[in-house]
Amino acid sequence: MNNLKDMVFSAKNIAVISHINPDGDSLGSALALAVTLSTINSNVTLYINDVLPAKYEFLPEVHRFIMFKEEELEEFDITFVLDCGDIDRLGSSRSLADRTKNLVNIDHHVSNNHYGDINIIDVKASSTSQMVYHLIDEILQLPITPEVATCLYVGIVTDTGSFKYDNTSPETHRVVAKLLELGVDIEDITIHLFQNNSYKGVKFLGEFLKSLEILIDGKLALATISLQMLNKYSLDPDETDSIINYGRDIKGVEVAVTLKEVDKNLIKISLRSKTNIDVNEIAKAFGGGGHKKASGATLKGTIEEVRERVVEEVRKAFMHNGDGSHCAIGIRNR
Amino acid sequence: MNNLKDMVFSAKNIAVISHINPDGDSLGSALALAVTLSTINSNVTLYINDVLPAKYEFLPEVHRFIMFKEEELEEFDITFVLDCGDIDRLGSSRSLADRTKNLVNIDHHVSNNHYGDINIIDVKASSTSQMVYHLIDEILQLPITPEVATCLYVGIVTDTGSFKYDNTSPETHRVVAKLLELGVDIEDITIHLFQNNSYKGVKFLGEFLKSLEILIDGKLALATISLQMLNKYSLDPDETDSIINYGRDIKGVEVAVTLKEVDKNLIKISLRSKTNIDVNEIAKAFGGGGHKKASGATLKGTIEEVRERVVEEVRKAFMHNGDGSHCAIGIRNR
Repeated sequence: MNNLKDMVFSAKNIAVISHINPDGDSLGSALALAVTLSTINSNVTLYINDVLPAKYEFLPEVHRFIMFKEEELEEFDITFVLDCGDIDRLGSSRSLADRTKNLVNIDHHVSNNHYGDINIIDVKASSTSQMVYHLIDEILQLPITPEVATCLYVGIVTDTGSFKYDNTSPETHRVVAKLLELGVDIEDITIHLFQNNSYKGVKFLGEFLKSLEILIDGKLALATISLQMLNKYSLDPDETDSIINYGRDIKGVEVAVTLKEVDKNLIKISLRSKTNIDVNEIAKAFGGGGHKKASGATLKGTIEEVRERVVEEVRKAFMHNGDGSHCAIGIRNR
Repeated sequence: MNNLKDMVFSAKNIAVISHINPDGDSLGSALALAVTLSTINSNVTLYINDVLPAKYEFLPEVHRFIMFKEEELEEFDITFVLDCGDIDRLGSSRSLADRTKNLVNIDHHVSNNHYGDINIIDVKASSTSQMVYHLIDEILQLPITPEVATCLYVGIVTDTGSFKYDNTSPETHRVVAKLLELGVDIEDITIHLFQNNSYKGVKFLGEFLKSLEILIDGKLALATISLQMLNKYSLDPDETDSIINYGRDIKGVEVAVTLKEVDKNLIKISLRSKTNIDVNEIAKAFGGGGHKKASGATLKGTIEEVRERVVEEVRKAFMHNGDGSHCAIGIRNR
């Protein structure tokens, strides 16, 4: 990696880009790297392709993110692409990759397709922020300021679900120990990330939980979001994304499903699995897809029609999984 | 501390006790120490004073906890009291302390009143489990099995709110890194601790959120739990304890209050602060108390009467805090 260090120290100009629909890890890692590189190079540009989600507006030096504009495009010596498994996830700044001398792809996703001139891929890292810590500390050998430590911490804490997901390793905790020593204010970050919910989002949750029911002997949690509910609360999409977890996190529940009426007779379903039931297979039956533990699909029909089809498909999945004996019990409204 | 090591290795019999209303740290640290001591001494007794909360039934070797019975009391060479700031928090096994040769008090609470013959108090430790890690590893120099590591991890993760509270230090993360290396199954622990909610608890949350309102210019979140709601859902007390956080975690909210009708004309109030408002002072005005960020009191009156008095007292606290300019705005139903 000495090559990379030499390349960085001799570069005329450098770009750093985050992916579309940026999350904490994408923003934190990009910001940390750009801020650090700015201490040795006055020509560092940090691009964003999307609106910055409000919850990340507190990140130190977040004003450095600028919207990518095709017509103002420079040619860069190095472009760092962070946390991005596929170059098409760069959105409009995709063209930047074509006009850069050295494209450096830094990522932890197993699906990464090695599109860079230099590819640093570590599928065992919890997050790209964890990788950028090592990049700055060991490869570039540059100091990490409290502001940069804060950005990296935010990337790690959001991508690991506060160190609860199984991508969390001993190394994750060792890196976080070092970041805290560098001066991260956990209390301030906790308020911004986890204690800053919208009032209407909380009221929406109340209505959502009212619709929640458990079926198939308590193994399926199902809830519906009507068009009328969506219009009443007019939430940002990321405010409803994780609401399905309330169903999943009920004792005995193995699969949670949310039916969201996105238009008249058009229902978007989200599925989550807590056990070894593969919800990707269930989503595929409806022309959708995703992962084993999280998937989705879009179906035509009324909420009631789609509900019936989904319950039937989940019931089949339980039967194939060898739980057939319980399946006749507890199906309501059929 | 060589004394302690010698004392432990030469003891005829040893007792380990957890405090009343045991939490994850109390149970995890006591179990970890008792299981480890059992590898060098066949006379180790682990006492519990209360019913084991269901969510901790998954802890390795949890069957070792036995209910304390006064009439069967032995005299012990050493009794370890864990995570217990005051000896009166031992409940009925308080008398055990009087009939032990060496009482060892291991705790991280700042309020600990040093009641032991040996007192190991570290107010900078996140948890007693973090301290027991060092006790086993450095003082006793005994190996930590995957089962013991699991108990210690549970103690740390519950007492730090998944590493989000400001008692979390670099040392906390370093200890957890070592525990994970010893073989902790994070995914399994996460399911048991955080994805095992009761269905009725989730439905109760839905009703609770319906009653939630924001007052005093969005700085006070207030919700009520009627006797009728409590009877309808018949929840365990620990299922309603943290529900107040939904109010606290709303953007702009500084103080959250829950009014719980525990009997006719008897209202228990819980208060939480997210900022520098001291809710201990507010609780004191009603004859209650607690900490700066978490307090409570019990008041006589109807929900509506108590609600009015509490809103008024919170409004005064905001005024004393220099936020008087906003106080006239947003008070509903007055």
